[in-house]
Amino acid sequence: MELEIESQTEEPSETLRSVISQRLDAHWVVGFVDGEGCFYVGVNPHPDMKTGYQVLPEFTVVQHERDIQILYALKKFFGCGVVRKNHADRMAYRVRSITHLSERIVPFFEKHPLKTKKHVDFLKFRDVVNLMVRGDHLTPLGVERIRKIASMMNTGCER
Amino acid sequence: MELEIESQTEEPSETLRSVISQRLDAHWVVGFVDGEGCFYVGVNPHPDMKTGYQVLPEFTVVQHERDIQILYALKKFFGCGVVRKNHADRMAYRVRSITHLSERIVPFFEKHPLKTKKHVDFLKFRDVVNLMVRGDHLTPLGVERIRKIASMMNTGCER
Repeated sequence: MELEIESQTEEPSETLRSVISQRLDAHWVVGFVDGEGCFYVGVNPHPDMKTGYQVLPEFTVVQHERDIQILYALKKFFGCGVVRKNHADRMAYRVRSITHLSERIVPFFEKHPLKTKKHVDFLKFRDVVNLMVRGDHLTPLGVERIRKIASMMNTGCER
Repeated sequence: MELEIESQTEEPSETLRSVISQRLDAHWVVGFVDGEGCFYVGVNPHPDMKTGYQVLPEFTVVQHERDIQILYALKKFFGCGVVRKNHADRMAYRVRSITHLSERIVPFFEKHPLKTKKHVDFLKFRDVVNLMVRGDHLTPLGVERIRKIASMMNTGCER
């Protein structure tokens, strides 16, 4: 099982720092996420879990490495998440912490709704996050419910 | 040679009309174009042109057909361009008219700069549009200059 430490001390290089300092506008963030964002819920078999499954929701924005500065700007904007290599020349901004998802990501997109069909995915994603906050992903019935929601999501986005 | 009529009377279906009426915010448009937009300059051999080449700049946003309403909203926002089938299940919002590019698209992105590296492409695109407004694309020297600029553009966007 991969544990991801969302370190507060992780620092980008000096050359990036000036670019990151650009403040993002909330509407710009919504537009960019409408284009490039991904709300994904993984439900994976996991022998260590009582239910037999691990539920992994994640919010991701993937970019070519030339635009890594915009991923750090998103990290700063939301005040959570990590920037990591994705695959090949692609980098990803990623939020997996259920606390950060429920307290920062979900409220932001409730206040500033997406304009594309990605909004429908977001609403299902929010349902899953809310169920997890209640601990439902730790019961077989909850996992089944989340699986059903997740199966209707993820309409072709890169993550 | 394909002639594209940018008709003012082209009307989307009734069901789309209500969705299109959503006003887009300028910052949202910049964010969305940072993610999904494409500034492209085609320089194609063309026997009817004195220079032997036709220069075709275009601004495009491509989406899955499920999000066609957002393409119509962009058309309404910029007050120009067309929405057309691209290929398979993809639709495109497209502006090719040099007048619309120079009087609407370019000034908008000058006033509201893109935040990703797509901004660099935009600046080159603007150079080409300005050269064309002066008529430079009708001279061999101008075409050569535009070809050089175009060869440094188009960093992997869908159109």
